Amino acid sequence: MSTILKGAPVVAAMNEANAARCAALREKGVVPTLAVVRVGAREDDLSYEKGVMARCAKVGVEVKQFLLPADAAQEELLRVMAGINADAAIHGCLLFRPLPKQFDDRTIRAALSPEKDIDGITDGSLAGVFTNTAVGYPPCTAQACLEILKFYNIPLSGRRAVVVGRSLVVGKPAAMMLDRENATVTLCNSRTQNLPEVCREADVVVVAMGRMGFIGAEHLRAGQVVVDVGIHVNEEGRLCGDVRFGEAEPVVDAITPVPGGVGTVTTSVLVSHVVEAAEKSV
Amino acid sequence: MSTILKGAPVVAAMNEANAARCAALREKGVVPTLAVVRVGAREDDLSYEKGVMARCAKVGVEVKQFLLPADAAQEELLRVMAGINADAAIHGCLLFRPLPKQFDDRTIRAALSPEKDIDGITDGSLAGVFTNTAVGYPPCTAQACLEILKFYNIPLSGRRAVVVGRSLVVGKPAAMMLDRENATVTLCNSRTQNLPEVCREADVVVVAMGRMGFIGAEHLRAGQVVVDVGIHVNEEGRLCGDVRFGEAEPVVDAITPVPGGVGTVTTSVLVSHVVEAAEKSV
Repeated sequence: MSTILKGAPVVAAMNEANAARCAALREKGVVPTLAVVRVGAREDDLSYEKGVMARCAKVGVEVKQFLLPADAAQEELLRVMAGINADAAIHGCLLFRPLPKQFDDRTIRAALSPEKDIDGITDGSLAGVFTNTAVGYPPCTAQACLEILKFYNIPLSGRRAVVVGRSLVVGKPAAMMLDRENATVTLCNSRTQNLPEVCREADVVVVAMGRMGFIGAEHLRAGQVVVDVGIHVNEEGRLCGDVRFGEAEPVVDAITPVPGGVGTVTTSVLVSHVVEAAEKSV
Repeated sequence: MSTILKGAPVVAAMNEANAARCAALREKGVVPTLAVVRVGAREDDLSYEKGVMARCAKVGVEVKQFLLPADAAQEELLRVMAGINADAAIHGCLLFRPLPKQFDDRTIRAALSPEKDIDGITDGSLAGVFTNTAVGYPPCTAQACLEILKFYNIPLSGRRAVVVGRSLVVGKPAAMMLDRENATVTLCNSRTQNLPEVCREADVVVVAMGRMGFIGAEHLRAGQVVVDVGIHVNEEGRLCGDVRFGEAEPVVDAITPVPGGVGTVTTSVLVSHVVEAAEKSV
Protein backbone atom coordinates (compact mmCIF):
# COMPACT_ATOMS: atom_id res chain seq x y z
CA MET A 1 0.00 0.00 0.00
CA SER A 2 1.53 3.24 -1.09
CA THR A 3 0.75 6.85 -0.20
CA ILE A 4 -1.45 8.54 -2.80
CA LEU A 5 -0.02 11.97 -3.49
CA LYS A 6 -3.28 13.74 -4.18
CA GLY A 7 -3.32 17.15 -5.80
CA ALA A 8 -6.20 18.50 -3.70
CA PRO A 9 -4.27 19.39 -0.52
CA VAL A 10 -1.52 20.96 -2.62
CA VAL A 11 -4.13 23.03 -4.45
CA ALA A 12 -5.81 24.03 -1.16
CA ALA A 13 -2.51 25.24 0.30
CA MET A 14 -1.62 27.13 -2.88
CA ASN A 15 -5.09 28.70 -3.12
CA GLU A 16 -4.83 29.92 0.43
CA ALA A 17 -1.39 31.46 -0.15
CA ASN A 18 -2.46 32.99 -3.48
CA ALA A 19 -5.62 34.48 -1.96
CA ALA A 20 -3.64 36.10 0.86
CA ARG A 21 -1.12 37.57 -1.58
CA CYS A 22 -3.93 38.85 -3.82
CA ALA A 23 -5.60 40.51 -0.85
CA ALA A 24 -2.35 42.22 0.11
CA LEU A 25 -1.89 43.46 -3.46
CA ARG A 26 -5.46 44.75 -3.68
CA GLU A 27 -4.89 46.70 -0.47
CA LYS A 28 -2.06 48.45 -2.28
CA GLY A 29 -4.42 49.18 -5.16
CA VAL A 30 -2.99 46.49 -7.43
CA VAL A 31 -5.48 44.07 -8.98
CA PRO A 32 -3.54 40.99 -10.16
CA THR A 33 -4.74 40.50 -13.72
CA LEU A 34 -4.36 37.69 -16.23
CA ALA A 35 -4.90 38.09 -19.96
CA VAL A 36 -6.25 34.96 -21.60
CA VAL A 37 -5.67 34.90 -25.35
CA ARG A 38 -7.56 32.30 -27.33
CA VAL A 39 -7.74 31.88 -31.10
CA GLY A 40 -10.76 29.83 -32.13
CA ALA A 41 -12.62 27.55 -29.75
CA ARG A 42 -10.91 24.19 -29.38
CA GLU A 43 -12.55 21.87 -26.86
CA ASP A 44 -9.30 21.42 -24.86
CA ASP A 45 -8.68 25.15 -24.65
CA LEU A 46 -12.21 25.91 -23.51
CA SER A 47 -12.03 23.34 -20.75
CA TYR A 48 -8.64 24.55 -19.49
CA GLU A 49 -9.79 28.17 -19.74
CA LYS A 50 -12.82 27.41 -17.63
CA GLY A 51 -10.61 25.86 -14.95
CA VAL A 52 -8.23 28.80 -14.99
CA MET A 53 -11.05 31.34 -14.72
CA ALA A 54 -12.64 29.53 -11.80
CA ARG A 55 -9.31 29.29 -9.98
CA CYS A 56 -8.59 32.99 -10.61
CA ALA A 57 -12.01 34.04 -9.37
CA LYS A 58 -11.52 32.00 -6.22
CA VAL A 59 -8.30 33.71 -5.16
CA GLY A 60 -8.93 37.23 -6.45
CA VAL A 61 -7.15 37.36 -9.80
CA GLU A 62 -8.96 39.32 -12.51
CA VAL A 63 -9.17 37.78 -15.99
CA LYS A 64 -9.37 39.69 -19.27
CA GLN A 65 -10.26 37.59 -22.29
CA PHE A 66 -8.91 38.31 -25.75
CA LEU A 67 -10.77 36.13 -28.23
CA LEU A 68 -9.89 35.89 -31.91
CA PRO A 69 -11.64 33.90 -34.63
CA ALA A 70 -9.93 30.70 -35.78
CA ASP A 71 -9.11 32.36 -39.11
CA ALA A 72 -7.53 35.48 -37.56
CA ALA A 73 -4.37 36.78 -39.25
CA GLN A 74 -0.98 36.70 -37.55
CA GLU A 75 -0.89 40.51 -37.57
CA GLU A 76 -4.06 40.67 -35.51
CA LEU A 77 -2.65 38.37 -32.85
CA LEU A 78 0.63 40.30 -32.78
CA ARG A 79 -1.36 43.52 -32.21
CA VAL A 80 -3.17 41.88 -29.30
CA MET A 81 0.12 40.70 -27.80
CA ALA A 82 1.69 44.15 -28.18
CA GLY A 83 -1.31 45.65 -26.40
CA ILE A 84 -0.93 43.20 -23.53
CA ASN A 85 2.80 43.91 -23.23
CA ALA A 86 2.10 47.63 -23.08
CA ASP A 87 -0.78 47.43 -20.57
CA ALA A 88 0.64 47.92 -17.06
CA ALA A 89 -2.67 46.71 -15.59
CA ILE A 90 -2.08 43.22 -17.06
CA HIS A 91 0.50 41.15 -15.19
CA GLY A 92 0.46 37.84 -16.98
CA CYS A 93 -0.63 36.34 -20.28
CA LEU A 94 -1.88 32.84 -21.07
CA LEU A 95 -1.89 32.12 -24.79
CA PHE A 96 -3.51 28.88 -25.93
CA ARG A 97 -1.36 26.78 -28.23
CA PRO A 98 -0.97 25.04 -30.60
CA LEU A 99 -2.19 27.92 -32.75
CA PRO A 100 -3.95 27.41 -36.10
CA LYS A 101 -1.70 26.80 -39.11
CA GLN A 102 -1.52 30.39 -40.36
CA PHE A 103 0.52 31.39 -37.29
CA ASP A 104 4.27 31.09 -36.87
CA ASP A 105 4.60 29.77 -33.33
CA ARG A 106 8.15 31.11 -32.90
CA THR A 107 7.21 34.66 -33.93
CA ILE A 108 4.18 34.71 -31.66
CA ARG A 109 6.08 33.37 -28.64
CA ALA A 110 8.84 35.93 -29.21
CA ALA A 111 6.22 38.70 -29.18
CA LEU A 112 5.39 38.21 -25.50
CA SER A 113 7.35 40.03 -22.78
CA PRO A 114 9.10 37.40 -20.63
CA GLU A 115 7.98 39.19 -17.45
CA LYS A 116 4.34 38.52 -18.45
CA ASP A 117 5.09 34.98 -19.62
CA ILE A 118 3.45 33.16 -16.73
CA ASP A 119 3.11 29.97 -18.81
CA GLY A 120 6.81 29.58 -19.69
CA ILE A 121 6.59 29.80 -23.48
CA THR A 122 9.21 32.47 -24.29
CA ASP A 123 12.93 31.95 -24.83
CA GLY A 124 13.47 34.14 -21.77
CA SER A 125 11.46 31.77 -19.56
CA LEU A 126 13.09 28.67 -21.02
CA ALA A 127 16.57 30.17 -20.60
CA GLY A 128 15.55 31.05 -17.03
CA VAL A 129 14.67 27.42 -16.29
CA PHE A 130 17.85 26.19 -17.93
CA THR A 131 20.15 28.67 -16.22
CA ASN A 132 18.30 28.77 -12.90
CA THR A 133 17.79 32.51 -12.97
CA ALA A 134 14.65 34.52 -12.27
CA VAL A 135 13.74 35.33 -15.87
CA GLY A 136 10.14 34.63 -16.83
CA TYR A 137 8.37 31.59 -15.38
CA PRO A 138 8.78 27.81 -15.79
CA PRO A 139 6.14 25.84 -17.69
CA CYS A 140 3.29 25.26 -15.23
CA THR A 141 2.99 21.48 -15.52
CA ALA A 142 6.70 20.95 -14.88
CA GLN A 143 6.49 23.16 -11.80
CA ALA A 144 3.33 21.33 -10.67
CA CYS A 145 5.41 18.13 -10.39
CA LEU A 146 7.87 19.92 -8.13
CA GLU A 147 5.10 21.55 -6.06
CA ILE A 148 3.66 18.11 -5.30
CA LEU A 149 7.06 16.66 -4.37
CA LYS A 150 7.79 19.63 -2.10
CA PHE A 151 4.34 19.67 -0.49
CA TYR A 152 4.73 16.02 0.50
CA ASN A 153 8.32 16.58 1.68
CA ILE A 154 9.84 14.10 -0.73
CA PRO A 155 13.63 14.38 -0.34
CA LEU A 156 15.36 15.35 -3.58
CA SER A 157 18.87 16.57 -2.74
CA GLY A 158 21.40 13.85 -3.53
CA ARG A 159 18.60 11.49 -4.65
CA ARG A 160 18.27 10.00 -8.08
CA ALA A 161 15.46 11.22 -10.27
CA VAL A 162 14.51 9.78 -13.64
CA VAL A 163 12.41 11.85 -16.02
CA VAL A 164 10.80 9.84 -18.81
CA GLY A 165 9.99 12.10 -21.75
CA ARG A 166 11.81 15.22 -22.87
CA SER A 167 9.18 17.67 -24.04
CA LEU A 168 9.74 21.38 -23.53
CA VAL A 169 6.51 21.71 -21.57
CA VAL A 170 7.25 19.01 -19.01
CA GLY A 171 10.22 16.65 -19.30
CA LYS A 172 13.14 18.98 -19.90
CA PRO A 173 12.06 21.78 -17.54
CA ALA A 174 11.15 19.23 -14.85
CA ALA A 175 14.66 17.75 -15.23
CA MET A 176 16.18 21.21 -14.75
CA MET A 177 13.99 21.94 -11.73
CA LEU A 178 14.96 18.61 -10.13
CA ASP A 179 18.62 19.46 -10.79
CA ARG A 180 18.02 22.80 -9.08
CA GLU A 181 16.95 20.80 -6.01
CA ASN A 182 20.29 18.97 -6.24
CA ALA A 183 18.86 15.68 -7.43
CA THR A 184 20.96 13.55 -9.79
CA VAL A 185 18.71 13.60 -12.84
CA THR A 186 18.52 11.16 -15.74
CA LEU A 187 16.53 12.26 -18.79
CA CYS A 188 15.10 9.37 -20.82
CA ASN A 189 13.77 9.43 -24.36
CA SER A 190 12.16 7.04 -26.79
CA ARG A 191 15.59 5.59 -27.75
CA THR A 192 16.53 4.79 -24.15
CA GLN A 193 17.65 1.17 -23.84
CA ASN A 194 16.57 -0.93 -20.84
CA LEU A 195 14.06 1.67 -19.70
CA PRO A 196 12.69 -0.59 -16.90
CA GLU A 197 16.19 -0.93 -15.44
CA VAL A 198 16.90 2.81 -15.75
CA CYS A 199 13.60 3.67 -14.04
CA ARG A 200 14.31 1.28 -11.19
CA GLU A 201 17.55 3.18 -10.41
CA ALA A 202 15.49 6.23 -9.46
CA ASP A 203 14.22 7.35 -6.08
CA VAL A 204 11.79 9.65 -7.90
CA VAL A 205 10.31 8.82 -11.31
CA VAL A 206 8.56 11.58 -13.27
CA VAL A 207 6.65 10.08 -16.19
CA ALA A 208 5.73 12.49 -18.98
CA MET A 209 5.69 10.36 -22.09
CA GLY A 210 2.17 10.96 -23.31
CA ARG A 211 1.70 7.21 -23.81
CA MET A 212 -1.20 5.63 -21.99
CA GLY A 213 -0.24 2.98 -19.46
CA PHE A 214 3.31 2.57 -20.74
CA ILE A 215 4.95 2.32 -17.30
CA GLY A 216 4.12 -0.69 -15.12
CA ALA A 217 5.45 -2.97 -12.41
CA GLU A 218 8.56 -3.92 -14.40
CA HIS A 219 9.78 -0.30 -14.30
CA LEU A 220 9.25 0.14 -10.58
CA ARG A 221 10.47 -1.06 -7.19
CA ALA A 222 9.74 -0.54 -3.51
CA GLY A 223 10.83 2.79 -2.07
CA GLN A 224 10.11 4.90 -5.11
CA VAL A 225 7.98 8.00 -5.56
CA VAL A 226 6.15 8.21 -8.90
CA VAL A 227 4.77 11.37 -10.49
CA ASP A 228 2.47 10.61 -13.42
CA VAL A 229 2.00 13.54 -15.78
CA GLY A 230 0.12 11.63 -18.48
CA ILE A 231 -3.58 12.10 -19.03
CA HIS A 232 -5.58 9.92 -21.38
CA VAL A 233 -9.07 8.55 -21.81
CA ASN A 234 -9.08 4.75 -21.87
CA GLU A 235 -11.41 2.41 -23.78
CA GLU A 236 -13.89 2.49 -20.93
CA GLY A 237 -13.98 6.29 -21.14
CA ARG A 238 -12.10 6.77 -17.89
CA LEU A 239 -9.17 9.11 -17.31
CA CYS A 240 -5.82 7.43 -16.77
CA GLY A 241 -2.11 8.25 -16.93
CA ASP A 242 1.16 7.05 -18.47
CA VAL A 243 1.52 4.71 -15.48
CA ARG A 244 -0.59 1.58 -14.94
CA PHE A 245 -1.79 2.74 -11.53
CA GLY A 246 -3.17 -0.63 -10.46
CA GLU A 247 0.21 -2.28 -10.98
CA ALA A 248 2.32 0.58 -9.64
CA GLU A 249 0.43 1.44 -6.48
CA PRO A 250 1.13 -1.83 -4.59
CA VAL A 251 4.85 -1.66 -5.47
CA VAL A 252 6.02 1.89 -4.85
CA ASP A 253 6.09 4.09 -1.75
CA ALA A 254 4.03 6.93 -3.16
CA ILE A 255 2.32 7.85 -6.42
CA THR A 256 0.25 10.68 -7.87
CA PRO A 257 -3.19 9.59 -9.12
CA VAL A 258 -4.76 10.35 -12.51
CA PRO A 259 -7.11 12.15 -12.34
CA GLY A 260 -6.60 14.17 -9.17
CA GLY A 261 -2.82 14.52 -9.33
CA VAL A 262 -0.48 16.74 -11.35
CA GLY A 263 -3.21 18.09 -13.62
CA THR A 264 -5.16 19.61 -10.76
CA VAL A 265 -2.10 21.53 -9.51
CA THR A 266 -1.19 23.09 -12.87
CA THR A 267 -3.73 25.92 -12.79
CA SER A 268 -2.73 26.84 -9.22
CA VAL A 269 0.85 27.20 -10.42
CA LEU A 270 -0.37 29.41 -13.27
CA VAL A 271 -2.28 31.61 -10.83
CA SER A 272 0.73 31.83 -8.49
CA HIS A 273 2.80 33.08 -11.42
CA VAL A 274 0.27 35.85 -12.11
CA VAL A 275 0.37 36.84 -8.44
CA GLU A 276 4.16 36.84 -8.48
CA ALA A 277 4.21 38.97 -11.64
CA ALA A 278 1.80 41.43 -10.00
CA GLU A 279 4.03 41.58 -6.90
CA LYS A 280 7.07 42.29 -9.06
CA SER A 281 5.17 45.13 -10.78
CA VAL A 282 4.62 47.03 -7.52
CA MET B 1 45.30 0.01 -23.72
CA SER B 2 42.70 2.51 -24.72
CA THR B 3 42.35 4.74 -27.75
CA ILE B 4 43.55 8.27 -27.07
CA LEU B 5 41.00 10.68 -28.52
CA LYS B 6 43.39 13.43 -29.49
CA GLY B 7 42.12 16.86 -30.38
CA ALA B 8 44.63 17.45 -33.19
CA PRO B 9 42.91 15.45 -35.96
CA VAL B 10 39.55 16.98 -35.00
CA VAL B 11 41.10 20.44 -35.21
CA ALA B 12 42.74 19.65 -38.55
CA ALA B 13 39.43 18.51 -40.04
CA MET B 14 37.60 21.55 -38.66
CA ASN B 15 40.31 23.95 -39.88
CA GLU B 16 40.10 22.50 -43.36
CA ALA B 17 36.31 22.83 -43.44
CA ASN B 18 36.41 26.34 -41.96
CA ALA B 19 39.08 27.49 -44.44
CA ALA B 20 37.01 26.22 -47.40
CA ARG B 21 33.89 27.96 -46.13
CA CYS B 22 35.83 31.20 -45.55
CA ALA B 23 37.22 31.06 -49.08
CA ALA B 24 33.71 30.60 -50.48
CA LEU B 25 32.47 33.57 -48.45
CA ARG B 26 35.35 35.80 -49.52
CA GLU B 27 34.57 34.98 -53.15
CA LYS B 28 31.13 36.43 -52.51
CA GLY B 29 32.76 39.53 -51.01
CA VAL B 30 32.03 38.57 -47.40
CA VAL B 31 34.97 38.62 -44.99
CA PRO B 32 34.02 36.55 -41.93
CA THR B 33 34.86 38.81 -39.01
CA LEU B 34 35.13 38.25 -35.28
CA ALA B 35 35.04 41.05 -32.72
CA VAL B 36 37.16 40.29 -29.64
CA VAL B 37 36.17 42.40 -26.65
CA ARG B 38 38.57 42.40 -23.73
CA VAL B 39 38.41 44.51 -20.57
CA GLY B 40 41.78 44.69 -18.84
CA ALA B 41 44.56 42.18 -19.49
CA ARG B 42 44.12 39.01 -17.48
CA GLU B 43 46.72 36.35 -18.19
CA ASP B 44 44.06 33.72 -19.05
CA ASP B 45 42.27 36.03 -21.45
CA LEU B 46 45.48 37.02 -23.25
CA SER B 47 46.49 33.41 -23.74
CA TYR B 48 43.06 32.37 -25.08
CA GLU B 49 42.90 35.48 -27.28
CA LYS B 50 46.27 34.60 -28.79
CA GLY B 51 45.02 31.10 -29.63
CA VAL B 52 41.82 32.44 -31.16
CA MET B 53 43.64 35.00 -33.28
CA ALA B 54 46.10 32.41 -34.60
CA ARG B 55 43.27 30.01 -35.45
CA CYS B 56 41.31 32.79 -37.18
CA ALA B 57 44.32 33.89 -39.21
CA LYS B 58 44.91 30.31 -40.33
CA VAL B 59 41.44 29.81 -41.81
CA GLY B 60 40.74 33.32 -43.09
CA VAL B 61 38.62 34.93 -40.36
CA GLU B 62 39.36 38.61 -39.73
CA VAL B 63 39.65 39.75 -36.10
CA LYS B 64 38.80 43.21 -34.76
CA GLN B 65 39.97 43.88 -31.23
CA PHE B 66 38.05 46.12 -28.85
CA LEU B 67 40.22 46.72 -25.79
CA LEU B 68 39.02 48.57 -22.70
CA PRO B 69 40.98 49.44 -19.55
CA ALA B 70 40.28 47.30 -16.45
CA ASP B 71 38.55 50.30 -14.83
CA ALA B 72 36.24 51.02 -17.78
CA ALA B 73 32.65 51.97 -16.94
CA GLN B 74 29.70 49.74 -17.79
CA GLU B 75 28.38 52.43 -20.14
CA GLU B 76 31.55 52.30 -22.20
CA LEU B 77 31.31 48.56 -22.66
CA LEU B 78 27.60 48.81 -23.53
CA ARG B 79 28.48 51.37 -26.21
CA VAL B 80 31.07 48.99 -27.65
CA MET B 81 28.56 46.13 -27.68
CA ALA B 82 25.91 48.32 -29.35
CA GLY B 83 28.44 49.27 -32.02
CA ILE B 84 29.24 45.61 -32.66
CA ASN B 85 25.56 44.71 -32.90
CA ALA B 86 25.01 47.50 -35.42
CA ASP B 87 28.06 46.73 -37.58
CA ALA B 88 27.00 44.41 -40.42
CA ALA B 89 30.67 43.71 -41.19
CA ILE B 90 31.08 41.96 -37.81
CA HIS B 91 29.57 38.47 -37.66
CA GLY B 92 30.48 37.25 -34.21
CA CYS B 93 31.60 38.61 -30.85
CA LEU B 94 33.83 37.02 -28.22
CA LEU B 95 33.63 38.83 -24.89
CA PHE B 96 36.08 37.77 -22.17
CA ARG B 97 34.47 37.00 -18.86
CA PRO B 98 34.37 37.14 -15.89
CA LEU B 99 34.30 40.91 -16.17
CA PRO B 100 35.70 43.23 -13.47
CA LYS B 101 33.42 43.92 -10.50
CA GLN B 102 31.94 47.20 -11.75
CA PHE B 103 30.08 45.32 -14.50
CA ASP B 104 26.71 43.62 -14.19
CA ASP B 105 27.26 40.38 -16.06
CA ARG B 106 23.56 39.90 -16.82
CA THR B 107 23.14 43.37 -18.34
CA ILE B 108 26.24 42.99 -20.47
CA ARG B 109 25.26 39.53 -21.74
CA ALA B 110 21.77 40.79 -22.59
CA ALA B 111 23.32 43.60 -24.64
CA LEU B 112 24.71 41.23 -27.27
CA SER B 113 22.60 40.18 -30.27
CA PRO B 114 22.07 36.40 -30.08
CA GLU B 115 22.92 36.07 -33.80
CA LYS B 116 26.44 37.39 -33.04
CA ASP B 117 26.75 35.37 -29.83
CA ILE B 118 29.25 32.79 -31.13
CA ASP B 119 30.35 31.96 -27.57
CA GLY B 120 26.91 31.01 -26.20
CA ILE B 121 26.58 33.62 -23.45
CA THR B 122 23.16 35.17 -24.17
CA ASP B 123 19.79 33.92 -22.98
CA GLY B 124 18.92 33.39 -26.64
CA SER B 125 21.84 30.99 -27.12
CA LEU B 126 21.15 29.17 -23.86
CA ALA B 127 17.46 28.83 -24.71
CA GLY B 128 18.55 27.56 -28.14
CA VAL B 129 20.66 24.81 -26.54
CA PHE B 130 17.87 23.94 -24.12
CA THR B 131 15.10 23.87 -26.70
CA ASN B 132 17.22 22.46 -29.55
CA THR B 133 16.45 25.32 -31.91
CA ALA B 134 18.80 27.34 -34.07
CA VAL B 135 18.98 30.47 -31.92
CA GLY B 136 22.48 31.73 -31.15
CA TYR B 137 25.31 29.23 -30.60
CA PRO B 138 26.09 26.70 -27.88
CA PRO B 139 28.98 27.35 -25.49
CA CYS B 140 32.14 26.33 -27.37
CA THR B 141 33.63 23.94 -24.82
CA ALA B 142 30.40 21.95 -24.53
CA GLN B 143 30.24 21.67 -28.30
CA ALA B 144 33.94 20.69 -28.42
CA CYS B 145 33.06 17.57 -26.38
CA LEU B 146 30.44 16.63 -28.95
CA GLU B 147 32.76 17.39 -31.90
CA ILE B 148 35.32 14.94 -30.52
CA LEU B 149 32.72 12.22 -29.92
CA LYS B 150 31.34 12.67 -33.43
CA PHE B 151 34.75 12.82 -35.12
CA TYR B 152 35.70 9.48 -33.56
CA ASN B 153 32.28 7.98 -34.39
CA ILE B 154 31.40 7.23 -30.79
CA PRO B 155 27.80 5.95 -30.82
CA LEU B 156 25.47 8.09 -28.72
CA SER B 157 21.88 7.28 -29.70
CA GLY B 158 20.31 5.03 -27.10
CA ARG B 159 23.58 4.96 -25.10
CA ARG B 160 23.96 6.16 -21.55
CA ALA B 161 25.93 9.32 -20.96
CA VAL B 162 26.89 10.72 -17.57
CA VAL B 163 27.90 14.36 -17.28
CA VAL B 164 29.73 15.20 -14.06
CA GLY B 165 29.41 18.92 -13.31
CA ARG B 166 26.54 21.22 -14.16
CA SER B 167 28.07 24.54 -15.13
CA LEU B 168 26.38 26.68 -17.77
CA VAL B 169 29.54 26.74 -19.88
CA VAL B 170 30.02 22.99 -20.07
CA GLY B 171 27.99 20.52 -18.02
CA LYS B 172 24.41 21.60 -18.65
CA PRO B 173 24.80 22.46 -22.36
CA ALA B 174 26.80 19.25 -22.94
CA ALA B 175 23.95 17.30 -21.31
CA MET B 176 21.44 18.97 -23.65
CA MET B 177 23.61 18.30 -26.70
CA LEU B 178 23.98 14.63 -25.73
CA ASP B 179 20.21 14.45 -25.32
CA ARG B 180 19.88 15.95 -28.80
CA GLU B 181 21.91 12.96 -30.04
CA ASN B 182 19.35 10.71 -28.33
CA ALA B 183 21.63 9.59 -25.52
CA THR B 184 20.08 8.87 -22.12
CA VAL B 185 21.80 11.54 -20.07
CA THR B 186 22.44 11.69 -16.33
CA LEU B 187 23.57 15.03 -14.89
CA CYS B 188 25.62 14.72 -11.69
CA ASN B 189 26.44 17.41 -9.18
CA SER B 190 28.42 17.77 -5.98
CA ARG B 191 25.59 16.20 -3.95
CA THR B 192 25.38 13.08 -6.10
CA GLN B 193 25.55 9.97 -3.96
CA ASN B 194 27.62 6.96 -5.08
CA LEU B 195 29.26 8.92 -7.89
CA PRO B 196 31.61 6.02 -8.79
CA GLU B 197 28.62 3.72 -9.28
CA VAL B 198 26.70 6.31 -11.30
CA CYS B 199 29.71 6.95 -13.55
CA ARG B 200 30.17 3.22 -14.18
CA GLU B 201 26.59 3.04 -15.57
CA ALA B 202 27.64 5.26 -18.46
CA ASP B 203 28.87 4.36 -21.91
CA VAL B 204 30.18 7.92 -22.25
CA VAL B 205 31.42 9.95 -19.28
CA VAL B 206 31.92 13.70 -19.69
CA VAL B 207 33.85 15.10 -16.73
CA ALA B 208 33.60 18.85 -16.20
CA MET B 209 33.96 19.31 -12.46
CA GLY B 210 36.90 21.67 -12.33
CA ARG B 211 38.51 19.44 -9.67
CA MET B 212 41.97 18.15 -10.44
CA GLY B 213 42.26 14.36 -10.60
CA PHE B 214 38.90 13.71 -8.94
CA ILE B 215 37.88 10.87 -11.24
CA GLY B 216 39.89 7.64 -11.12
CA ALA B 217 39.71 3.89 -11.64
CA GLU B 218 36.87 3.45 -9.14
CA HIS B 219 34.56 5.55 -11.34
CA LEU B 220 35.36 3.68 -14.55
CA ARG B 221 35.02 0.33 -16.27
CA ALA B 222 35.97 -1.36 -19.51
CA GLY B 223 34.02 -0.27 -22.57
CA GLN B 224 33.64 3.37 -21.62
CA VAL B 225 34.57 6.53 -23.48
CA VAL B 226 35.80 9.37 -21.25
CA VAL B 227 35.87 13.06 -22.18
CA ASP B 228 37.92 15.11 -19.71
CA VAL B 229 37.11 18.81 -19.79
CA GLY B 230 39.17 19.78 -16.73
CA ILE B 231 42.40 21.66 -17.05
CA HIS B 232 44.72 22.25 -14.12
CA VAL B 233 48.40 22.68 -13.36
CA ASN B 234 49.66 20.02 -10.94
CA GLU B 235 52.37 20.34 -8.30
CA GLU B 236 55.03 19.41 -10.83
CA GLY B 237 53.84 22.27 -13.05
CA ARG B 238 52.29 19.96 -15.64
CA LEU B 239 48.85 20.29 -17.18
CA CYS B 240 46.32 17.67 -16.14
CA GLY B 241 42.56 17.13 -16.09
CA ASP B 242 39.72 16.19 -13.76
CA VAL B 243 40.51 12.53 -14.54
CA ARG B 244 43.58 10.66 -13.27
CA PHE B 245 44.73 9.75 -16.76
CA GLY B 246 47.27 7.15 -15.65
CA GLU B 247 44.56 5.21 -13.82
CA ALA B 248 41.82 5.69 -16.38
CA GLU B 249 43.68 4.95 -19.58
CA PRO B 250 44.33 1.22 -18.91
CA VAL B 251 40.68 0.68 -17.87
CA VAL B 252 38.48 2.41 -20.44
CA ASP B 253 38.08 2.00 -24.20
CA ALA B 254 38.88 5.57 -25.14
CA ILE B 255 39.80 8.82 -23.41
CA THR B 256 40.65 12.42 -24.31
CA PRO B 257 44.08 13.54 -23.08
CA VAL B 258 44.87 16.73 -21.13
CA PRO B 259 46.54 18.65 -22.66
CA GLY B 260 45.76 17.93 -26.30
CA GLY B 261 42.08 17.05 -25.93
CA VAL B 262 38.92 19.11 -25.50
CA GLY B 263 40.79 22.38 -24.92
CA THR B 264 42.43 22.31 -28.32
CA VAL B 265 39.09 21.88 -30.11
CA THR B 266 37.33 24.79 -28.38
CA THR B 267 38.82 27.58 -30.52
CA SER B 268 37.99 25.66 -33.71
CA VAL B 269 34.38 25.50 -32.58
CA LEU B 270 34.44 29.24 -31.92
CA VAL B 271 35.81 29.90 -35.39
CA SER B 272 33.21 27.61 -36.99
CA HIS B 273 30.51 29.66 -35.26
CA VAL B 274 31.89 32.88 -36.76
CA VAL B 275 31.92 31.26 -40.19
CA GLU B 276 28.35 30.05 -39.72
CA ALA B 277 27.24 33.51 -38.59
CA ALA B 278 28.88 35.02 -41.67
CA GLU B 279 27.11 32.46 -43.89
CA LYS B 280 23.78 33.33 -42.31
CA SER B 281 24.42 37.04 -42.98
CA VAL B 282 24.69 36.51 -46.75
